[in-house]
Amino acid sequence: MQERIGVIDLGSNTTRLMVMGFTPHHSFKLLDEVRETVRLAEGVGDDGRLKPGPMERGIEAMKLFHSFCRATGVQRIVPVATSAVREATNQAEFLLRVERESGLKLRVLSTEEEAYYGYLGAANALDLRDAYLVDIGGGSTEVTAIRGRGLLRSFSAPAGVVRFTERYVRSDPISKSDFKALESAAAEIFDGLNWLSNTNGTMLAGIGGTIRTLADIDQKMHSYPLDRVHGYCFTRERLEAIVELLRSLSLRQREEVPGLSRDRADLILAGAVIVHQLMRRGHFADITVSGQGLREGVFYEHFLVGEDPPLFADMRGFSVQNLARIYNYQAIHAAKVRELSLALFDQLRSLHGYGAWERELLGHAATLHDIGTVVSYYDHHKHGAYLIVNSALQGFNHREIALLALLVRYHRKGDVVVDPYRDTLHSSDGARVARLAALLRLAEYLERSKSQVIQRLDVELGDTIRVVTRAIGDATVEIWDANRSAGLFKKAFGKEIEIV
Amino acid sequence: MQERIGVIDLGSNTTRLMVMGFTPHHSFKLLDEVRETVRLAEGVGDDGRLKPGPMERGIEAMKLFHSFCRATGVQRIVPVATSAVREATNQAEFLLRVERESGLKLRVLSTEEEAYYGYLGAANALDLRDAYLVDIGGGSTEVTAIRGRGLLRSFSAPAGVVRFTERYVRSDPISKSDFKALESAAAEIFDGLNWLSNTNGTMLAGIGGTIRTLADIDQKMHSYPLDRVHGYCFTRERLEAIVELLRSLSLRQREEVPGLSRDRADLILAGAVIVHQLMRRGHFADITVSGQGLREGVFYEHFLVGEDPPLFADMRGFSVQNLARIYNYQAIHAAKVRELSLALFDQLRSLHGYGAWERELLGHAATLHDIGTVVSYYDHHKHGAYLIVNSALQGFNHREIALLALLVRYHRKGDVVVDPYRDTLHSSDGARVARLAALLRLAEYLERSKSQVIQRLDVELGDTIRVVTRAIGDATVEIWDANRSAGLFKKAFGKEIEIV
Repeated sequence: MQERIGVIDLGSNTTRLMVMGFTPHHSFKLLDEVRETVRLAEGVGDDGRLKPGPMERGIEAMKLFHSFCRATGVQRIVPVATSAVREATNQAEFLLRVERESGLKLRVLSTEEEAYYGYLGAANALDLRDAYLVDIGGGSTEVTAIRGRGLLRSFSAPAGVVRFTERYVRSDPISKSDFKALESAAAEIFDGLNWLSNTNGTMLAGIGGTIRTLADIDQKMHSYPLDRVHGYCFTRERLEAIVELLRSLSLRQREEVPGLSRDRADLILAGAVIVHQLMRRGHFADITVSGQGLREGVFYEHFLVGEDPPLFADMRGFSVQNLARIYNYQAIHAAKVRELSLALFDQLRSLHGYGAWERELLGHAATLHDIGTVVSYYDHHKHGAYLIVNSALQGFNHREIALLALLVRYHRKGDVVVDPYRDTLHSSDGARVARLAALLRLAEYLERSKSQVIQRLDVELGDTIRVVTRAIGDATVEIWDANRSAGLFKKAFGKEIEIV
Repeated sequence: MQERIGVIDLGSNTTRLMVMGFTPHHSFKLLDEVRETVRLAEGVGDDGRLKPGPMERGIEAMKLFHSFCRATGVQRIVPVATSAVREATNQAEFLLRVERESGLKLRVLSTEEEAYYGYLGAANALDLRDAYLVDIGGGSTEVTAIRGRGLLRSFSAPAGVVRFTERYVRSDPISKSDFKALESAAAEIFDGLNWLSNTNGTMLAGIGGTIRTLADIDQKMHSYPLDRVHGYCFTRERLEAIVELLRSLSLRQREEVPGLSRDRADLILAGAVIVHQLMRRGHFADITVSGQGLREGVFYEHFLVGEDPPLFADMRGFSVQNLARIYNYQAIHAAKVRELSLALFDQLRSLHGYGAWERELLGHAATLHDIGTVVSYYDHHKHGAYLIVNSALQGFNHREIALLALLVRYHRKGDVVVDPYRDTLHSSDGARVARLAALLRLAEYLERSKSQVIQRLDVELGDTIRVVTRAIGDATVEIWDANRSAGLFKKAFGKEIEIV
């Protein structure tokens, strides 16, 4: 990685420093993240002034971030501020103090810029072609319409969870009347939004800590198998169950809810109600979580420098390459396994009947099949699956993540068992994994010596499948081993295979 | 890593190529391992000649390994052969053919050399001060006595699992009389070994695929929580249960035993009986598995070049450093967290009463606390625990591995839950982890900015513990955060803490 950039985002509730290592257009990795709950908007009244305590906390956090950047070799720092600072009547005074005391010059984002960077972050991390995006922050809420991956229009309201909590969550547990008032105020936010509606199944995606936390609570309530919120999709009904639970609990009890961190236990009720009212207003049946937002959007402007808008042309392909590069994969070996897997896939099409989607996943699994060796060579197939589930792979839904993980898990040995991921899969996916894994495993064994001896292969369909290989040099062991791996093929396709 | 070395070990049952990347005396990592089941000793009769089919398979495997090494940039290849070649009456012919056809010049190890390299591998991976070491191979069995980490004497018998299986496992399931014959022959191997005995609790350790497989079967039978055999210890009673199980099953049924790979299902019964007879003969109550053996021993001669014998002076310390280096840890930050953790440990000694062992573990956990960031910054505490459990950390038993994993798991957040590792822990370890993790977490928060601002700290014991820090520069946020992390301290020690 050639460069290190630090993006700082000073919000109304939390402030975060995100440090990315990157080589522009090539690869990047999140190196560090420091989060402070500064509650900058705390106590802002009708005069719109930031209060001394919160300002002090904000400045101290900026000092911490600056010395963190100096100590960890961050060459460039991009500090931005959102609604709390944007709307503060004492903004100038605060900015001056921040600069003087911490050495950081904050850039205050307009509502349009805030929506834009949130859009850039999410549209580079989820497959959002036609979608609505909501960002619920401490001090404001943005809603953005995306058409054909482009930003069509955005809307911003100075209504965030800090202010809403201070104004409406005044009883503990919340009283019926306070809850009613909270609901009405949340519904009102979206009153003017006549362009917001789930026409033709337009999807809804969400960014920000509120939505990530709601997803986490939902996953814990249902013992969800993946420890991953990015790309997670949950229904309005599930959200309603969470709202009902949260409103019945005291703050103290909320702190014990699995998935809910202590410093968000007070704000989560207002946040959940805002999301819920938005979903009702637009008739959305579910919401998909984006783990990336504003900070990543600011980063992509630097990473994809020169592109306007800075969007990945092939997000999934890039992200797979990026992951492989981070873990120093053996590019030539992986490319050969990919080539052989896809040749088998194409020539066996009449047998499996799968299409472009499965082909793409098989290719990605081939690229990633050995990444687990970064953990340990032993059991690297298991480690590879772990890395895929826990990585920042962009553009895949959870079913696809599970399929990729399973293909990597079974690329060298073992009988296919998909049970651990059952909740994210369709009923046909067991057979899908077994068949695709059989092809991948065959390709891997044909590349056993990592020397690219197999130049091409031709499949002859019959009662027994014959795979005729043409080799440069000696491929005796490759062909032995490939024949020994035929067990999975037989199980998956119900046919014998012979490699010659 | 400056160099790549390939160590090849041509045995009677399997042959393996192990590729290590390394910088002498500094760091190393297993990059690749290729295993072929060649069964070189198959069918060797009274004339002692290797048979044409097995020789062919051996030569093909050597060709595969050589082209693998060429393709993956291995600069040096060290191919060794053990009993099958050593005892072959047509050895010269075979060696000549291997050299001519594969280009590899095999070095045939004497029985003493085979025992020596096995000892080097195991003594650099387990804490073997006074111990016996057994290596059960396809063609021979070595027993070595270790005193004060040195090799005292060794014994070798041309009795391995391939020959024993061919000679005694002739019925399926094995008949009573065949089993009796197998047991007597196995007992006979150790007849002359009058120096073998478990005096003063001298431990027994074992290397080789047979012992790893037995450990794996035992773990699967008991749903063992760690996916790790190196350092695993199992009792003679447990082994007896496995022998009873295996002798009752047909080969076909053995193939379905969890933990037993298909190509070892035939050999495992003879292997289990040999281990069992050894344990009976020497009155050993249990056996500890070494995941490293002959190949690693050969490697250490190159890694620890210049040392005689090539043994790590501080195996655990080296291994922790090695792991940290492999994952590009932030050395200065880790060293500061270690320093602060140990200062807290030392000054709070009257409160916890722990000794040198806990101090050492706390220091290692501090060194490793951030390694999980190699997987993903998010949840890196969980990934760090995963890496520790799945890494090749040398010299620790499973309880220590679990303690290290738990300390890293809780170094930044969460309430301590040790349940997943309960089977490897003692009943006092829950409190041990909570206390040590509280110290580590405090140290981590005092190094929040990664800028080494805290120069020293002094603990004042009282009803409330006061930690007085001296900082270079501004430590406001460090001290805030450290105070916020006091919750775990309170739970672990039952006392309030205040950082000033």
